[in-house]
Amino acid sequence: MKAILYHGKHDFRFSDTADPTLGAETDAIVRVSRAAICGSDLHLWHGGLPESPNTRPGFTVGHEFLGVVDEVGPGVRSVRKGDRVLASCTAGCGTCTACRRGVFSGCLVMTQGPGAGNIFGFGHGLQGGQAEAARVPFADANLFKIPDSISDEQALFLTDILPTGYMGADLAEVSPGDTVVVFGCGPVGTFAQMCARLCGAARVIAVDPDEQRLERARKSGCDVVNPTKTNLVEFVLGCTGGLGADATIEAVGRGDLITQSALVTRAGGRVAVIGVVAEPMVQLPWILFFMKNIALRTGLVNPQVHIPRLLPLIERGRIDPASIITHRLPLSQGVRGYEIFAGHQDNVLKVVLEA
Amino acid sequence: MKAILYHGKHDFRFSDTADPTLGAETDAIVRVSRAAICGSDLHLWHGGLPESPNTRPGFTVGHEFLGVVDEVGPGVRSVRKGDRVLASCTAGCGTCTACRRGVFSGCLVMTQGPGAGNIFGFGHGLQGGQAEAARVPFADANLFKIPDSISDEQALFLTDILPTGYMGADLAEVSPGDTVVVFGCGPVGTFAQMCARLCGAARVIAVDPDEQRLERARKSGCDVVNPTKTNLVEFVLGCTGGLGADATIEAVGRGDLITQSALVTRAGGRVAVIGVVAEPMVQLPWILFFMKNIALRTGLVNPQVHIPRLLPLIERGRIDPASIITHRLPLSQGVRGYEIFAGHQDNVLKVVLEA
Amino acid sequence: MKAILYHGKHDFRFSDTADPTLGAETDAIVRVSRAAICGSDLHLWHGGLPESPNTRPGFTVGHEFLGVVDEVGPGVRSVRKGDRVLASCTAGCGTCTACRRGVFSGCLVMTQGPGAGNIFGFGHGLQGGQAEAARVPFADANLFKIPDSISDEQALFLTDILPTGYMGADLAEVSPGDTVVVFGCGPVGTFAQMCARLCGAARVIAVDPDEQRLERARKSGCDVVNPTKTNLVEFVLGCTGGLGADATIEAVGRGDLITQSALVTRAGGRVAVIGVVAEPMVQLPWILFFMKNIALRTGLVNPQVHIPRLLPLIERGRIDPASIITHRLPLSQGVRGYEIFAGHQDNVLKVVLEA
Amino acid sequence: MKAILYHGKHDFRFSDTADPTLGAETDAIVRVSRAAICGSDLHLWHGGLPESPNTRPGFTVGHEFLGVVDEVGPGVRSVRKGDRVLASCTAGCGTCTACRRGVFSGCLVMTQGPGAGNIFGFGHGLQGGQAEAARVPFADANLFKIPDSISDEQALFLTDILPTGYMGADLAEVSPGDTVVVFGCGPVGTFAQMCARLCGAARVIAVDPDEQRLERARKSGCDVVNPTKTNLVEFVLGCTGGLGADATIEAVGRGDLITQSALVTRAGGRVAVIGVVAEPMVQLPWILFFMKNIALRTGLVNPQVHIPRLLPLIERGRIDPASIITHRLPLSQGVRGYEIFAGHQDNVLKVVLEA
Repeated sequence: MKAILYHGKHDFRFSDTADPTLGAETDAIVRVSRAAICGSDLHLWHGGLPESPNTRPGFTVGHEFLGVVDEVGPGVRSVRKGDRVLASCTAGCGTCTACRRGVFSGCLVMTQGPGAGNIFGFGHGLQGGQAEAARVPFADANLFKIPDSISDEQALFLTDILPTGYMGADLAEVSPGDTVVVFGCGPVGTFAQMCARLCGAARVIAVDPDEQRLERARKSGCDVVNPTKTNLVEFVLGCTGGLGADATIEAVGRGDLITQSALVTRAGGRVAVIGVVAEPMVQLPWILFFMKNIALRTGLVNPQVHIPRLLPLIERGRIDPASIITHRLPLSQGVRGYEIFAGHQDNVLKVVLEA
Repeated sequence: MKAILYHGKHDFRFSDTADPTLGAETDAIVRVSRAAICGSDLHLWHGGLPESPNTRPGFTVGHEFLGVVDEVGPGVRSVRKGDRVLASCTAGCGTCTACRRGVFSGCLVMTQGPGAGNIFGFGHGLQGGQAEAARVPFADANLFKIPDSISDEQALFLTDILPTGYMGADLAEVSPGDTVVVFGCGPVGTFAQMCARLCGAARVIAVDPDEQRLERARKSGCDVVNPTKTNLVEFVLGCTGGLGADATIEAVGRGDLITQSALVTRAGGRVAVIGVVAEPMVQLPWILFFMKNIALRTGLVNPQVHIPRLLPLIERGRIDPASIITHRLPLSQGVRGYEIFAGHQDNVLKVVLEA
Repeated sequence: MKAILYHGKHDFRFSDTADPTLGAETDAIVRVSRAAICGSDLHLWHGGLPESPNTRPGFTVGHEFLGVVDEVGPGVRSVRKGDRVLASCTAGCGTCTACRRGVFSGCLVMTQGPGAGNIFGFGHGLQGGQAEAARVPFADANLFKIPDSISDEQALFLTDILPTGYMGADLAEVSPGDTVVVFGCGPVGTFAQMCARLCGAARVIAVDPDEQRLERARKSGCDVVNPTKTNLVEFVLGCTGGLGADATIEAVGRGDLITQSALVTRAGGRVAVIGVVAEPMVQLPWILFFMKNIALRTGLVNPQVHIPRLLPLIERGRIDPASIITHRLPLSQGVRGYEIFAGHQDNVLKVVLEA
Repeated sequence: MKAILYHGKHDFRFSDTADPTLGAETDAIVRVSRAAICGSDLHLWHGGLPESPNTRPGFTVGHEFLGVVDEVGPGVRSVRKGDRVLASCTAGCGTCTACRRGVFSGCLVMTQGPGAGNIFGFGHGLQGGQAEAARVPFADANLFKIPDSISDEQALFLTDILPTGYMGADLAEVSPGDTVVVFGCGPVGTFAQMCARLCGAARVIAVDPDEQRLERARKSGCDVVNPTKTNLVEFVLGCTGGLGADATIEAVGRGDLITQSALVTRAGGRVAVIGVVAEPMVQLPWILFFMKNIALRTGLVNPQVHIPRLLPLIERGRIDPASIITHRLPLSQGVRGYEIFAGHQDNVLKVVLEA
């Protein structure tokens, strides 16, 4: 089949690779119809992957995809050939201690052994979905049927970034009446803003240096701050009677914004970091977290936990995930999609590939 | 001063009564500018008050009011003369064990002794606010300043029924993605629907036999069911894949609707009863609550707890409480207001009196 | 094989019945080594079962049992032949919407169709475990391996009544420092008291008319009240400064004790009913629940949810479930066990049958 | 009066200072009977205080004290002359937005203006309690009556370190059945261990290089690890099936132990840091917190929130705070107490000064 393969920094290729096959009784093969390029795929694109046998060139990338079930192993009970399904970007076995607690990303089965991988598309262990087809392990835990009333484009972001945005609101314990600061107006930040409102936020303050993204946020109901022009801390204190925000969501992935988050958050408030901070160590302004009793949370997303809540909200039109799509390309032009997204070309917000 | 006084069943009178005076260092006197008639005032109107020295004819009625501070005792710290304020319908001392837990309605100070009363307007102990002025005990705990950006009409329902509606969503633990059934499309039911959406409900099913009220609910985004025409249980099971609703809010005040609530709620779901059920004993279908693990909650509202969350939501335009007002009358015509409300005349939803 | 069979009111028989066999790929057969008689088995013993094809005479009774896996279907992954295991008394499929939410007792698979049954030993649909062997459906969801460090007797009550007692503390939201009233000092009440302490209760007030059971409770650290001798409401108010208990757990199963529970519970408190109230309708003192903002919860137990928490507590010796066993009999004398337990003979608290 | 005064690094003096006087209507003067030396007092002792007019030499130190009310301002309602009371170490006004949320340590009144101070004994703004008497602002919010059934020594640690230990268990969300690692067996660590058990922990692993402190922890029921002799990470993984601890409490105050905490905590677990980390910035192993979805919490203690829960537990003998006292000295020998505590002399765990 055809797929987008990793060959190194800035070297992805649309080319032939082996068809996926059932490797275990609980596997399913999905014929992919839509895949999206994620901000975390750009870490790969920019070469940010440690070398190992598992990450040698030639694996298929992409962890946001959906399609139609083509084949299932004899141990699969919840989906069958022909079902329209989406895959969770992190895969868990569904029955280990970690999965039973809802921490699929810490699955004791998927994360062990050589070649292990529990996120699609970051190595040979679990090949990605920017391809004509993909193997999904433990299909009962990781595939979700898409109701007829929901289009592929509306369902696609349930694979990763919509649950990630929701996780931001959840980890930051956004509650009715809250003032919430969201760093970043990219795809994840936009969903975090959307979910903060869904959880009852009275005011969402969107922060981004990109005026066009800010304008989009403003239209969706956010207050907006361009931190290169406005003193953010003063702005937030000014509109909260000097207190600070109840909750702050970092959706960019920069260590220094965790410090900014602590500065704008009130005593007793919460900070959630859902942007992927690529640095192994982060300098934390401990005195702020300590003196202000601020909770700090982060983590890999577990779409399996959030999809049952988010699906009916899409069905009922309360949230409109497809609104972030700015570019649609055929899978064959996927590498071009990476260039557009990495280069912030053409007001890009989200690129979808159609297989 | 002039006030609306209770003289017995269907006998309220707009007449002279003594001006309120400071009775304790922590009291405040509020010159009333707006008051509203509540569904629970109709219990009084229809004569539903046990006889006692505290409830002899002649007391001022009304527990939903706001105005301007006219005088404060020397122990009052948080408001001063001239402040525009609203009063919580239940009054607590703010410092006893119950109040510190947020259960102001169970205040150990306000509920003890002869003539005790912790809800305005139900006896001589705590005179009401459908009057030109009212005494508010423990003003620091029970009065809330109204920001300049909020009109009297937008603030008025923070005194009782907006927090009551929010309490419904809170006690029913409405969460993102939930299907919520709300019995009743009166003022409290309307606010419960509004707050269920605020808490992230994917679908709110409004139930009422009154087609005009249903139409209003439909326009606000609810699914609607007239139970005299449609089998409600079938409807709810039909749109939840046979499961039942995640949460149900009874906002009418009829014991038999608690049984209906259990029938439409899923296993593991929650029922909140915010309608005032006037019967001391209720027949509960225990087997349903037991076999389906349904939580049942009710209670007097504690606006003091919810106002800090709801105020910014009104300020920011996320909820529009004044939208339920259908009738505005001068205080002098308050008795006419009772007749209209009690008689369901003229598509009445909420009557506001202007002093 | 031999088993204890239901033949009607006060007519249970230890006799031959068909060996259990695998009926589905996800079934397991357990060779039973220990079974216990539960208070809810006495409802059967006293004839409290509606007649239906499913409940015709001849089915095996008992829902508290453990043993060794004898055979598993090809779809079973988490246990294998030879494993020492205990079974949850309620059985769920583990993957439907209800089970994923932890409400196994509302499993959409196990509760549907003719002959359905989701509790062992109440009909032909799901035969019981007071037998030499039993079939367990969806073994991955309903069987739990017993660590070597735990004896059969210590593990046995994880099948039902220890999780039930824990559910009582959980539904009543027992928190550090609470005063908790527990109605009943039988097996379930004893576990509820134990779990209330485990959750940090400062004071547990055990209520029972049986002086010998009270004495046992007193020795375990409870305050005790014999309600035939002491005015319970006065006692509770007296030791809580007039407030009432923070939480109350009804572990007897009598509708009138729900009223008592409301009387002894403080404003804003919680009542959990874990006793099996056999009446379909219960008269609830609504005015108490309403005026005091008391939450009321009940339900079937879901041991699957609680076992992972309770198992390490037994392993580490923090709770000692086997301490309630007063009688040990061979399975062949199980009918005698019922007579002892039903007749409150010989200070019986819990009867265990050894197969 | 006599008091222990700060004069600089290692220069504390027991000498004369001005008697405290009522400065506001809401103040109270407490005649001190017991005070304790806290680990955070040692930061002062070792000179760790930024210079400012507020911290010039000569202020009274100490933030753990209790005694008898000597005088109250006219605005004080909840205590009166002669009451035996303890003071919260952090003081709040009790009515601002922060205090109403329970974040007294972020009180908007106490933390503003020159000379502000919201912890006793760290400057001239709020003089300490290692003295014959102390002024307590907002006495209604910050003083708590001590029941007759509790001795001074049992009550003393409610002022700070017992609530701090409890906060550790609370922030780490310790729940029944959990495995909890506690770094540190000093006074705060000991209370954290005690409170972890109180919240239902199945296993508490106490970590300290001091064998005598470890022995004390072992006797109280902890598993113990001396990290200079045993590989802690291996130990924790070994006794949790490779998973890691559910919750970890850092009660030492060293930035590097936050990294250790992340290493021993399971995916989806919680880390609470209650030790005072004196460094303004801490190097955080972000990748661990991110990949393992670990929540990180810290903060100043708010005894006002926890005292109502902890007091009945002491009254009922469920916790025994006085058990940590190793040294009792007259106030006049307080400086000697500092030397003993700072020098780890004589197996010291906690020094109490008697006035």
